Amino acid sequence: MLYILGLGLRGASSLSLQEKDILSGCEHIFFETYTSVSPSQTIDQLSTMLNREVKRAGREDVENPVALLSLSSRHDVCLLVTGDPLSATTHNQLRVDAQQAGINVTVIENASILSVIPGKLGLFPYKMGPPVSLPFPDDNFLPRSVCQKIKFNRDSGFHTMVLLDLREGRTMYSFEAVEVLLRMEEKHAIGAVSRSDVICAAIKVSQEGEKIICDRSENILDLRLEESPVTLVIPGSLNHNEEYFLGKFAKKCYYFR
Amino acid sequence: MLYILGLGLRGASSLSLQEKDILSGCEHIFFETYTSVSPSQTIDQLSTMLNREVKRAGREDVENPVALLSLSSRHDVCLLVTGDPLSATTHNQLRVDAQQAGINVTVIENASILSVIPGKLGLFPYKMGPPVSLPFPDDNFLPRSVCQKIKFNRDSGFHTMVLLDLREGRTMYSFEAVEVLLRMEEKHAIGAVSRSDVICAAIKVSQEGEKIICDRSENILDLRLEESPVTLVIPGSLNHNEEYFLGKFAKKCYYFR
Repeated sequence: MLYILGLGLRGASSLSLQEKDILSGCEHIFFETYTSVSPSQTIDQLSTMLNREVKRAGREDVENPVALLSLSSRHDVCLLVTGDPLSATTHNQLRVDAQQAGINVTVIENASILSVIPGKLGLFPYKMGPPVSLPFPDDNFLPRSVCQKIKFNRDSGFHTMVLLDLREGRTMYSFEAVEVLLRMEEKHAIGAVSRSDVICAAIKVSQEGEKIICDRSENILDLRLEESPVTLVIPGSLNHNEEYFLGKFAKKCYYFR
Repeated sequence: MLYILGLGLRGASSLSLQEKDILSGCEHIFFETYTSVSPSQTIDQLSTMLNREVKRAGREDVENPVALLSLSSRHDVCLLVTGDPLSATTHNQLRVDAQQAGINVTVIENASILSVIPGKLGLFPYKMGPPVSLPFPDDNFLPRSVCQKIKFNRDSGFHTMVLLDLREGRTMYSFEAVEVLLRMEEKHAIGAVSRSDVICAAIKVSQEGEKIICDRSENILDLRLEESPVTLVIPGSLNHNEEYFLGKFAKKCYYFR
């Protein structure tokens, strides 16, 4: 049996009671470390709490899961995934691969940044457009599509969640992400973001030091906050309630200066 | 102190370890019963597990929270909310009201139907348009806006999650919801849904008897499944991976007949 378990956003303490029971009865526990960032120390916390070895599973282990599936065909195996486990294609593919190998798969959901972020900012789920991913701008890779999707959402009055690329155990910082967005905009001139547009940065959500900032992008650049993980939100049109809630929930909020 | 705790989708067993600790140390525990449906027996399970009284909090208690806030100003109070606690305006307002009354508020997120549904169907989060709510058609209340929003999403290639109204402890059934959508369409002729369009119904998600159905709306009507809770998804354009995953994850899938 293969269990794909969501770890939520708080490390070991956001495991559900059912997940803890499953983990306690499992023979092999892996912690997937490449599709998202969990609080540091999570792997140690898990080992201590469960009194068991928790192994790291990297990109190769999950995308070419021959060893993982072979183990699951003979033993009860848990794969822990930060957030909700079925938000990434990789884990859907793993679920299908396991099914096709005749292995029973149980998936347990958990909190995902995708549903938590709007609430943290006081934004209405009904006004969230499709999210976008922002890649590191290696070799000047600044895809036009990111700006187009943001622009489309804004023109429709929708908010855009911008999921930030990961590297070396952290997401892009807020100022790095804003910088990349502005460079994209400079290159493609789509009208998605400008230096004076207001952007929200949700930093260390549900962790010690959580911070919601809502300010002009030039000010987020100037802050140069070296904190991770971060998710950006580009607001579309805010209704009265959203402006009110955002003003209450954000540490620094442009709308209520 | 007021704790607003997400209960997730599985009743007591989807509480997180941290939430269980908080509940154990709390003096008053309320379970909010009107913004969503938890598995029946949840309140009894919670009482038994915590060995404490768990009181029901209805609409009045949460929307006019004078008593709740007064209690929270003197005691540690927990309000349990099915799914994620900050997806409804009501709870955002409660958070603000408590803050303004000088009461410390701690919110603990949990799995939400909003982020879980795409994964259960194998749909890409990047292709989810804004969700819509479908009200019971009392007095022939069939708002044009529901059809317009679905049509807008479909025209943009996005999928639409349709959140179904609650009454007497259950959501609309899948066939009732499809019927309402078709009546709306008949009234407004927007081109959002037709009898031959394919619709997905996610039934009893993460509960015993979970079922993902993907079929022409006329066939969902014919099935007359009296099961709750249900969330519908109106697919926009499916990419190759989505069609493949949906075919694997759905019990009955039109795309793979």
